[in-house]
Amino acid sequence: MNKKAVILLSGGLDSTTCLALAKTQGFELFALTVNYGQRHIFELESAKIVAQTIGVNKHSIVNIDLSQFGGSALTDDIDVPKDRDETDMTDIPVTYVPARNTVLLSMALAWAETLGAIDIFIGVNSVDYSGYPDCRPEFIESFEQTANLATKAGIDGNRFKIHTPLIDLTKAEIVIKGTELAVDYSMTTSCYDPHENGNPCGHCDACTLRLKGFMEAGLEDPLNYK
Amino acid sequence: MNKKAVILLSGGLDSTTCLALAKTQGFELFALTVNYGQRHIFELESAKIVAQTIGVNKHSIVNIDLSQFGGSALTDDIDVPKDRDETDMTDIPVTYVPARNTVLLSMALAWAETLGAIDIFIGVNSVDYSGYPDCRPEFIESFEQTANLATKAGIDGNRFKIHTPLIDLTKAEIVIKGTELAVDYSMTTSCYDPHENGNPCGHCDACTLRLKGFMEAGLEDPLNYK
Repeated sequence: MNKKAVILLSGGLDSTTCLALAKTQGFELFALTVNYGQRHIFELESAKIVAQTIGVNKHSIVNIDLSQFGGSALTDDIDVPKDRDETDMTDIPVTYVPARNTVLLSMALAWAETLGAIDIFIGVNSVDYSGYPDCRPEFIESFEQTANLATKAGIDGNRFKIHTPLIDLTKAEIVIKGTELAVDYSMTTSCYDPHENGNPCGHCDACTLRLKGFMEAGLEDPLNYK
Repeated sequence: MNKKAVILLSGGLDSTTCLALAKTQGFELFALTVNYGQRHIFELESAKIVAQTIGVNKHSIVNIDLSQFGGSALTDDIDVPKDRDETDMTDIPVTYVPARNTVLLSMALAWAETLGAIDIFIGVNSVDYSGYPDCRPEFIESFEQTANLATKAGIDGNRFKIHTPLIDLTKAEIVIKGTELAVDYSMTTSCYDPHENGNPCGHCDACTLRLKGFMEAGLEDPLNYK
């Protein structure tokens, strides 16, 4: 096989594992990082290092300034919640970025169509998913259907496939799988609100879920949280 | 009524008519122009003038550089076809921008969700539509469904509505409707490949369809094609 795939890569734990999984499936890798005006700009640097280390055919970084729309703690001047219990994460939190995965997938679709690719990978997860609506399987299925109606490729009889290899996994299972694939998680960044030195805070929802995942996997998170 | 609506505004004939129609329906108008690296940058200037003249609550211009993906005569260095007969326009032309309307609608969705709006207007047209797959009613319906699964608003029980008031109209009918609403079409730009002075070429598919529309409507196009 020598098929092209577009992989959405934030530089976080999930998307990095997703990229490693796509690699094991033999795809030519086209990594796409969308800079949507997020506060955690350190993610972009992580994404570059991850793409280079895992080895991709091309890494594109596309800027879209969603922050001018406002409405999210990740792009606005709203406090990121800290030290929440996992049971509090069933509500949609203020870190939700409006329509984020729809925007990300539409960009991936645009690039895939240009490349002649029909495979798109996104590291969404519906288990430890922080309550985001656009991480649910029914959203992914609906987007896939829309993609096939939206595009020349779809009309020509090709079928886009949105791959979500992490969707049914717990964070612990994701970490175990990535570790089996020799992913070096010290490259990744998950934190919503890093310290000024770039190290993760250890207290936002993303850090809480990540640390719990490593703990349950019986593995040590290589990041320095100080 | 005092409901907010996001209206995609390119500055062309269709989106300008669409904006005027949304205004007659009493919506608070939030016009969104996406600069996707198109060659016809004159559109952006038209969009600003249209937004100001028709009168919107806010006009946002978002930059997304789709041109780095390549693959379209509108963003790449590919020749725009000229003087094609309308019967040749059933094939998808090289001016097709990959996944364009999916990208545009996802940006509109992001802004709508932030505003607390559930109404989105897009001036797509399935009659004189140049063969683009993402102008078809089945695409719009599918996107609407995806939008409701993608968003917090959708989960909260609100239903997004993608308004396509032009979808069943011929270009002539669109021009007649706009003229009834006192739209000044001298503000608009449709051309894919304008002269260096910014005036339309009169020969690309967009100009051909526009001129035919005015002719069939028995009206004069106020633009200077020289």
